[in-house]
Amino acid sequence: MKKLINRIKTDGRVVSDGVLKVDSFLNHQVDPQLTAEMGKAFASYFGNRKITKVLTLESSGIPPAFTAAMELGVPMVFAKKQKPMTMKEDVWVERVFSFTKQIENEIHIGKAFLAASDRVLIIDDFLAHGEAALGLASIVKQAGAEVVGIGIVIEKAFQEGGEKLRNAGFDVLSLARIKSLTNQQVRFIDEE
Amino acid sequence: MKKLINRIKTDGRVVSDGVLKVDSFLNHQVDPQLTAEMGKAFASYFGNRKITKVLTLESSGIPPAFTAAMELGVPMVFAKKQKPMTMKEDVWVERVFSFTKQIENEIHIGKAFLAASDRVLIIDDFLAHGEAALGLASIVKQAGAEVVGIGIVIEKAFQEGGEKLRNAGFDVLSLARIKSLTNQQVRFIDEE
Repeated sequence: MKKLINRIKTDGRVVSDGVLKVDSFLNHQVDPQLTAEMGKAFASYFGNRKITKVLTLESSGIPPAFTAAMELGVPMVFAKKQKPMTMKEDVWVERVFSFTKQIENEIHIGKAFLAASDRVLIIDDFLAHGEAALGLASIVKQAGAEVVGIGIVIEKAFQEGGEKLRNAGFDVLSLARIKSLTNQQVRFIDEE
Repeated sequence: MKKLINRIKTDGRVVSDGVLKVDSFLNHQVDPQLTAEMGKAFASYFGNRKITKVLTLESSGIPPAFTAAMELGVPMVFAKKQKPMTMKEDVWVERVFSFTKQIENEIHIGKAFLAASDRVLIIDDFLAHGEAALGLASIVKQAGAEVVGIGIVIEKAFQEGGEKLRNAGFDVLSLARIKSLTNQQVRFIDEE
């Protein structure tokens, strides 16, 4: 997505060879117009797959998942990192390892919100090691539902998540694919 | 907001005299169309106040804050409950007591995303004791910026948050105001 790539070029900041900071428009401050276009891009690519639900993980995945769901005209569900006290019914739980924080988190989805008949589009803001997307996909599978695609805003293609997901048979659309962050520079795949 | 009130009537579930569960359309599964109308309602009421930023707290506040920001054509910022590891710069921090969980949380906003010139609309999904909104307002004040309004999706008007905020001089718009949840029944203010 050209507009996203340009925004990363102007406002993204390379913190280290592995970390890109995009908190001025994606995961702390959010640009609604740009996010709306992300939703359109996901809906345009995955729109013919009879999607019934868009699934993401709180919090940064919520805006792009929301705009995709809005475009597709289906509900959005966000998995929770903590089990809410009012969520007494059965929940699906999956363990997800966070490489950034070097800890294992549990993610939770109320069983009421994933049916075996659901055709699910998973959306997330970043794809690095693929743990979050795989955790969400695992819950979808446990529910007997189907993952019909995975939409990612920014893929760090120099890490193994994208390959892991594609090797597992998922159709992954990443709106920006980063080749490297070395020398304080963002280089994109498909650009050179 | 009539459509929201009707949705609470059909899909809200009274868990106890103090707790209303709306996770099928507001804070776990999200209805994009209904959320878009919330944004329109907030923008219609607060739209003439030269708002420069919409502020909320992760996670459930994000969808209605996002649609309000989209309508107003300004960025949305969501405060974070944990300080992210990549957020090394100065952040505003405020302590917020959670009555639901009976613990004190810290909320964080990067200083880069609140300027003294900002005119801020605070949005949240629920108003009960008012702690989250007051914490956000306190950070806005520390930044030298101005809170021009507070938009709430569901106000539990039988708890003291609404009065606290209005007594502090804030203009609060709640799209649904709940009078009581006793006897397993949702009763609304302005309805009787």
